[in-house]
Amino acid sequence: MKVLVNDQLIERDEAKIDIEDRGYQFGDGVYEVVRMYNGKFFTYEEHIDRLYASAAKIDLVIPYSKPELRAILDSLVTANNVGTGNVYLQVTRGIQSPRNHVIPETPLKAVLTASTSEVPRDMTLFEDGRKAIVEEDVRWLRCDIKSLNLLGNSMAKNKAHQAGALEAILHRDGSVTEGSATNAYMIKDGTLFTHAADNLVLAGITRQVILRVARENGIPVDESGFTLTDLATADEVFISSTTIEVTPIIAIDDKPVGDGKRGPITKQLHTYFTAEILKQCGELAFV
Amino acid sequence: MKVLVNDQLIERDEAKIDIEDRGYQFGDGVYEVVRMYNGKFFTYEEHIDRLYASAAKIDLVIPYSKPELRAILDSLVTANNVGTGNVYLQVTRGIQSPRNHVIPETPLKAVLTASTSEVPRDMTLFEDGRKAIVEEDVRWLRCDIKSLNLLGNSMAKNKAHQAGALEAILHRDGSVTEGSATNAYMIKDGTLFTHAADNLVLAGITRQVILRVARENGIPVDESGFTLTDLATADEVFISSTTIEVTPIIAIDDKPVGDGKRGPITKQLHTYFTAEILKQCGELAFV
Repeated sequence: MKVLVNDQLIERDEAKIDIEDRGYQFGDGVYEVVRMYNGKFFTYEEHIDRLYASAAKIDLVIPYSKPELRAILDSLVTANNVGTGNVYLQVTRGIQSPRNHVIPETPLKAVLTASTSEVPRDMTLFEDGRKAIVEEDVRWLRCDIKSLNLLGNSMAKNKAHQAGALEAILHRDGSVTEGSATNAYMIKDGTLFTHAADNLVLAGITRQVILRVARENGIPVDESGFTLTDLATADEVFISSTTIEVTPIIAIDDKPVGDGKRGPITKQLHTYFTAEILKQCGELAFV
Repeated sequence: MKVLVNDQLIERDEAKIDIEDRGYQFGDGVYEVVRMYNGKFFTYEEHIDRLYASAAKIDLVIPYSKPELRAILDSLVTANNVGTGNVYLQVTRGIQSPRNHVIPETPLKAVLTASTSEVPRDMTLFEDGRKAIVEEDVRWLRCDIKSLNLLGNSMAKNKAHQAGALEAILHRDGSVTEGSATNAYMIKDGTLFTHAADNLVLAGITRQVILRVARENGIPVDESGFTLTDLATADEVFISSTTIEVTPIIAIDDKPVGDGKRGPITKQLHTYFTAEILKQCGELAFV
């Protein structure tokens, strides 16, 4: 298995970074997870555009042009012969010694690391759905930046895991923001509700595709968000991310959502979403 | 120069960590900076107790007893012959492959790294003070944990630096929390005000010493905090941290605080604080 460290393909076990990489001491970096189906990238440009946008928000300069980055990521997925899987890439601000909150005026040399994993589509996830819990959103107020400051996300996800749930649906003062590693949606009386793509949530790429196909297919979309009270009486609830696509939430804090099964609009949206994958990546083993 | 990686003393330039260390991908770890004067630790136990407390708050088990940790830190400072300087140490949750927000049930092997730097006391800091700016506090709601999720802190500190200031004094909805890497204080009509040591601020060790010596010396202390409006009419303002001790803030957003010089109570508090250093570490080159 090969990984990337900067523009070099090296063996996984030889991949090391410096102890004073700002990624290690400040979480000072940004990342993306890009999905591949049948050896082809899905929504590649959208993910890479967001990577550069996240970097720009923290004044981090990615030391490659987009075509250069594409070429080195292509070399990685070719070397590892990725079929249906994920490409994880992160860029940190670089090594600063001695450690200092203040970054030097001459930019550091940013550090890219990337790896791949084979991750089949899990149809039970899409069809059967999973449970969620509700947790207070204690994260910072710049969740629009896909940064490496993920302790709050991880803590919430672990709490869900310990409760036998897949995800923690987060709220601020009763207003639902997103999941710990997903966007969150509610369907009520035929309308799809989700939080606005402001500073409190990540503007998910899967979210963008879902909202587009919903609108194209006549499902009304409301991005003004929803509350925990709304959630308790939702007809359908689902979450989305690069890996879990459109995954129904069938129970929240062990109370069933609707009749406790995937709802019809959630199913429809996943069908539309799958069609988008087919368009970009060709026929799938499981559709 | 030697550094610690786990319990091994190694040459600085050979110190590397794995690309899938959760410290690197999630900022999943905790840290401390401990000050030394004359080759002796100052408030060592308080820092180490807080390290273990921060770790416990994120369910991270430090793989050393406190005496074991003391022994390996002693070996580091002896090897580097630290006089007046800082010991930086951090503990991350360990290497997890493949990357996952959810941590495994069997704990990972945590990774300790530590290094030292010679940092003399800067008397101009204490006597002349420095400028500050005011910034919105966008950090997460668990600032009581001294974690590696420091992007918000670093962004605020950089903004201050760009404005020619030492520190950004942070506020939530007009209520002052702390500095980006310091605690913040105001003196009004003889009373010392600072934010309560709740989830929104770090319970600074220097803060604890300052509040204790203030009380011991008859200076009233109010931990109910203060607002930006209060700040604008403060008699004196200062910040504190392990390295900068008691540093006066002489201007905020380029408006002078009081008469624009270190105030008498700030000076008194630094004298009391210096006496505490002398008690633990002996005579200082600059008092």
